[in-house]
Amino acid sequence: MRIFAKLLAASLAAIPLLAGCTASDKEQAADFSKALELKSPDGGLTMKFTLSEDGTPMYSLDYQEKNVILPSSLGYEIRGDRDYSYKKGAIYGAPKSLHDGFSLLTSSTDSLDEVWHPVMGEESSVRNNYRELLVALKQDSTGILMNIRFRLYDDGLGLRYEFPQQDFSYFTIKEELTSFAMAGDHTAWWIPGDYDNQEYNYNESRLSEIPSVYKAKGILRNASQQIFSDTGVQTALQMRTDDGLYINIHEAAVVDYPTTSLNLDEKTLTFTTWLTPDAVGWKGFMQTPCKSPWRTVMVTDSAVKTLSSRLILNLNDPCAYEDVSWIHPTKYMGVWWEMICGKSKWSYTSDYPTVLIGVTDYSKAKPHGLHGANNENVRRYIDFAAANGFDAILVEGWNIGWEGYGHQKDYVFDFLTPYPDFDIEALNRYAHSKGIRLIMHHETSASVRNYERHMEEAYSLMNKYGYDAVKSGYVGDIIPRGWHHYTQDMINHYLYCVTQAASHHIMVNAHEAVRPTGLCRTYPNLIGNEAAMGTEYRGIIEASHVTVLPFTRLQGGPMDYTPGIFEMDLSKLNPKQDPVQAKFKSTICKQLALYVTMYSPLQMAADLPENYQAHMDAFQFIKDVALDWEKSVYLAAEPGDYVVVARQAKKSSLDAASKGVETLPDGMKGYVNGATAYAAGAKDVWFVGGVTDENARDIEVNFGFLPEGKTYEARFYVDGPDASWESKPQSYSIFSEEVSSATTKKIHMATSGGFAIELKEK
Amino acid sequence: MRIFAKLLAASLAAIPLLAGCTASDKEQAADFSKALELKSPDGGLTMKFTLSEDGTPMYSLDYQEKNVILPSSLGYEIRGDRDYSYKKGAIYGAPKSLHDGFSLLTSSTDSLDEVWHPVMGEESSVRNNYRELLVALKQDSTGILMNIRFRLYDDGLGLRYEFPQQDFSYFTIKEELTSFAMAGDHTAWWIPGDYDNQEYNYNESRLSEIPSVYKAKGILRNASQQIFSDTGVQTALQMRTDDGLYINIHEAAVVDYPTTSLNLDEKTLTFTTWLTPDAVGWKGFMQTPCKSPWRTVMVTDSAVKTLSSRLILNLNDPCAYEDVSWIHPTKYMGVWWEMICGKSKWSYTSDYPTVLIGVTDYSKAKPHGLHGANNENVRRYIDFAAANGFDAILVEGWNIGWEGYGHQKDYVFDFLTPYPDFDIEALNRYAHSKGIRLIMHHETSASVRNYERHMEEAYSLMNKYGYDAVKSGYVGDIIPRGWHHYTQDMINHYLYCVTQAASHHIMVNAHEAVRPTGLCRTYPNLIGNEAAMGTEYRGIIEASHVTVLPFTRLQGGPMDYTPGIFEMDLSKLNPKQDPVQAKFKSTICKQLALYVTMYSPLQMAADLPENYQAHMDAFQFIKDVALDWEKSVYLAAEPGDYVVVARQAKKSSLDAASKGVETLPDGMKGYVNGATAYAAGAKDVWFVGGVTDENARDIEVNFGFLPEGKTYEARFYVDGPDASWESKPQSYSIFSEEVSSATTKKIHMATSGGFAIELKEK
Repeated sequence: MRIFAKLLAASLAAIPLLAGCTASDKEQAADFSKALELKSPDGGLTMKFTLSEDGTPMYSLDYQEKNVILPSSLGYEIRGDRDYSYKKGAIYGAPKSLHDGFSLLTSSTDSLDEVWHPVMGEESSVRNNYRELLVALKQDSTGILMNIRFRLYDDGLGLRYEFPQQDFSYFTIKEELTSFAMAGDHTAWWIPGDYDNQEYNYNESRLSEIPSVYKAKGILRNASQQIFSDTGVQTALQMRTDDGLYINIHEAAVVDYPTTSLNLDEKTLTFTTWLTPDAVGWKGFMQTPCKSPWRTVMVTDSAVKTLSSRLILNLNDPCAYEDVSWIHPTKYMGVWWEMICGKSKWSYTSDYPTVLIGVTDYSKAKPHGLHGANNENVRRYIDFAAANGFDAILVEGWNIGWEGYGHQKDYVFDFLTPYPDFDIEALNRYAHSKGIRLIMHHETSASVRNYERHMEEAYSLMNKYGYDAVKSGYVGDIIPRGWHHYTQDMINHYLYCVTQAASHHIMVNAHEAVRPTGLCRTYPNLIGNEAAMGTEYRGIIEASHVTVLPFTRLQGGPMDYTPGIFEMDLSKLNPKQDPVQAKFKSTICKQLALYVTMYSPLQMAADLPENYQAHMDAFQFIKDVALDWEKSVYLAAEPGDYVVVARQAKKSSLDAASKGVETLPDGMKGYVNGATAYAAGAKDVWFVGGVTDENARDIEVNFGFLPEGKTYEARFYVDGPDASWESKPQSYSIFSEEVSSATTKKIHMATSGGFAIELKEK
Repeated sequence: MRIFAKLLAASLAAIPLLAGCTASDKEQAADFSKALELKSPDGGLTMKFTLSEDGTPMYSLDYQEKNVILPSSLGYEIRGDRDYSYKKGAIYGAPKSLHDGFSLLTSSTDSLDEVWHPVMGEESSVRNNYRELLVALKQDSTGILMNIRFRLYDDGLGLRYEFPQQDFSYFTIKEELTSFAMAGDHTAWWIPGDYDNQEYNYNESRLSEIPSVYKAKGILRNASQQIFSDTGVQTALQMRTDDGLYINIHEAAVVDYPTTSLNLDEKTLTFTTWLTPDAVGWKGFMQTPCKSPWRTVMVTDSAVKTLSSRLILNLNDPCAYEDVSWIHPTKYMGVWWEMICGKSKWSYTSDYPTVLIGVTDYSKAKPHGLHGANNENVRRYIDFAAANGFDAILVEGWNIGWEGYGHQKDYVFDFLTPYPDFDIEALNRYAHSKGIRLIMHHETSASVRNYERHMEEAYSLMNKYGYDAVKSGYVGDIIPRGWHHYTQDMINHYLYCVTQAASHHIMVNAHEAVRPTGLCRTYPNLIGNEAAMGTEYRGIIEASHVTVLPFTRLQGGPMDYTPGIFEMDLSKLNPKQDPVQAKFKSTICKQLALYVTMYSPLQMAADLPENYQAHMDAFQFIKDVALDWEKSVYLAAEPGDYVVVARQAKKSSLDAASKGVETLPDGMKGYVNGATAYAAGAKDVWFVGGVTDENARDIEVNFGFLPEGKTYEARFYVDGPDASWESKPQSYSIFSEEVSSATTKKIHMATSGGFAIELKEK
């Protein structure tokens, strides 16, 4: 198949005009011998741009001598004009092309090589080094101006559309037609294209097998989901070619624009953008001057280079805030896993078939006795978290309305009124006295208007009681009905929340929201997102899942994966647990490793205090691990198989630790990244994590990432020799050894196992 | 046709089960001999309720011996369950019946005879006198409980559905199936059923002619419009039977529920409710306990009794506010008509094809020189209004963004930032120094989310500068796209605005919003609405329009009709005016009469100061007329022909006048209703208004409405003998005479003419 594709590319270059060919072929009839060419800074990547015979913008991308993207067309189809004859229904004329009939007005090049410093991240300094080509196009028949900007990095391409201010002032997108013609039948890790849901296990298949896998596997049922095609997949899409290239198609800086899926034409192995529509089927309302998000093609010759790429962050704008002193890493526990597992409930009473916010008198309701967010239970979590150096406790189910959750109800929550057994004032006071903050929870139930109506008051309530982070949720079909989770209006909403929260100095961790596209660079109070299948899926999660996520979901920003499950038999929490979900497919050491392999400045220890109390030696790693990094070195990885990474705790944390714990502007204790080790006198601290899929494997860890000539005390947390997720998930060994940059060590990972190492410079 | 219908009714009563009949017939097979019966307090109206053979709820309504509503079915169709197999698109199972299979659990009766006092209104005391029947139904197959409450007044019926709290907790309406089988081919005054627009001239036709009139007349083009049927008409629908009954079908207290149209089955002359759908086609999301709006059938034996009916207000809840001291009648002028006529513009500059709120620097833009809301012009209006005893000046086009208006733009206005030539602080200060308030203008451009996002800050801005009333607008297709102006979510929105405004002590006058359904009783800060074709339509408005509106649109609440046009040749304001619109079809005296015939506590003098200056003697009536009433006596009326009404200025205004002008809590001058006359020593003040259609006619005014034995000085404003809208619209005579309750006087009204009288007790 790859050979076919190469031949096709060659034929396209040789034949300027194909007589009698299909429309699709004709569009691609472009003479690339005359193309404008852009080289990456190291010369490894070559991007070419030209116009086809019919004026269609075309580009291609090569890695050294290998085709990555064969000649592929760019452009839009826009909505026709409204027919004002006003019969039944709003009727629009034929769509208009914005993908052919263009001529080149001018082109210009530019380049940048800078270093920037994220507020929090996998490394403290990021190099942003690209060469740029800007082509200014004009559609001859309409006079419409459309520019395309290409930025070529050593590890990939970004391209976006830009519309200058012009008489063509407002337009509605019917389709974005950015295509990616793949040069072979690559292996791909993909989840189904979906307007509402990203919570899937990944499929691994050849591109050509996508339709058959679709049919065979079906679609995992979820609260909200809308599938549009049997060949649709979501961004980020990770691929591997048979000759060793790692290709990743994604998007960056999606702002007030729908998120895209990628729809595959099986015959040509070409993906085309498939934007998420709104309730009436349109895909974006634009006003010039405007620009699209970046469409990205990451290309490397190794998996670890893909994981080390900062392409998506680099294509986002610099930080939009002047003061970021209120944004900080957060390690938390929560009154949450017990509800997920069915041991307790979000709701308070079973007295009424329905409740009305502001009308139902909860003080007169009989509690059903299973409400998790009660004063006593919350204090229990606070006590344990405070005793173990955590920053915060998430409490879900604190506010009235949960009895009406799950019914597509408009006024489902007010985000203001606690249940009678949750004393918001006293609990916050108690938590603060122990150096713990509570994390607010705003489950919107996808009732977005209702959330926006209450948002200002809800954030003000948070300020009043000293909350500085909120976990928001979007479970269910979006209200306004017909919108999808990835509709332009929702993309607008999510960022609206983040910026409104910023004005209250609140950090946001949005669940069931859109997959992030690097916006945490610009808006660093977006400290976490779900936007993939996380720990809550319990036994459904496949062992390989966390070996794919760093290649896909995490490229766009940190995930609140909520690791740290120590009790894998979830029927112990709730005997009525669905058996499929009750058996958690992981060893304890894999759970520890996730704090390192799944980068996030927000990390939860998701299990119950009593389950940690049974393994306090292993829990020590969670207490110690840093969340914000000076440097990250990916040691080994293959998507779907394993990931091993070493990370150096941020140097500035050393200073913070030396100054004690009062690091936040309001005098509250903030999490001091790596504080335990620094406070104990370590001059330098690293953490290493490794995870594997359903296969046990031995990994040779080379400590060459450490600075030469220094000695580190390494504390190893490794799967026991008899460990396996299925029979002995809780088997582990903990031991210490001295290591240096010259050390190598073979480590065994059990089935769905892993390991974690803390390294302290002596 | 009426005979056929009567026969049909008789046959239905006689034949309990029709074998082999059609589904529609079968539904109506009900034995009314066993029906529950409800009589109006005066015994004139009889409502019967029964269940048909298949358990369909049925009702009928008679006026004395005349059928008003033949046996008609009630109920709903609700959405089927969601199919969670998650193929493409959200799929729902077959709809479920909520209109048959019911049995009667219990029935109970009740009655009320009370008097309540509206904050402002056509009379200071309203009698609310009804008899009630409540039937409790259970659908046997599902166990669903549905009650129907009937309230029978001397002038009509109200019925609504009520769902008690039960295990049937949440449901989605596919169709409401309330039907109204008319007993004859009545004459009707109707406008096309439409999800978005009520701005039509009325059609007068037989019911059977509705489809042909539809086809012949077509649909008047408007900014936003969605027609669903060639036999759909809007509420309120006014009818007249050949034997002299006046029947009006309307709705009352529409809260968080879509507004309905009425769809006619031509064969059976049966109307059925047709709710406005949301973006995905559903018509209402309900949670038990809940109730529908009232469906009303007003029946009287004269047109003046119909106009005197308080049925709609009586079916609404009492005032929801404790403090109403901040709500007051308002007589205003505005920087508005000059923009409507094209003499000036809402926008400020033509420099840019598009503008971005918060980005475009208006201070650097070149003004196009036609901006109406500039400091100098606003001061000119303030000066004139202050000199003539007005309360307020509306200023449209004061805020940035109008250059982007009309493009379905999301972030179109911020409702906060004035244009550079509108000094919001100085103008309010200047206005207040002269006893004038400015009225805020919020054109939402139908971008509803954007408005809600800014609402709190916008209302706070109003508080800051001393605005106490806002005119809001909803021109264009609603954003979120797919919603309609009458979708449940929008009904929710309009009331949300009113209640949010109330918390800021702000009165609301919403244009292009839904037609009101009596909510001003409950929320009296809803001081005005447009929701029909108003003066802005200029020459398009037919002469008969204002003789229909009191029967239809005004039944639900006051209209901001914006009368008072003195210069009928609009080409004088703007020579480029569309000739169709340039010739205003009214005499000056008809314009004066509208202040009396079109009840509203908010009245505008819409024309320009210079046009009033040319006729200050006639303008005196506008200065003098009261807006809030002790009592209203309709003297003569026929829909489509003429309306004559006498109103007594509210007695409490006398006290207010005697105390001077400082009547509002904040010390600002408030409008003192009828103050001119009272201040001049009158003990009692009345105003009379009369309007006619395209036909000139003489009216014999009988002053018997005045208290006996008292003498009044009457000042008459009548069309001149040579007046006609077409050739002499500005011809009038003004004279004074003494009158008493024994006086009768013949008054001539020109074509599209009218008259106005002020009566002051000596």
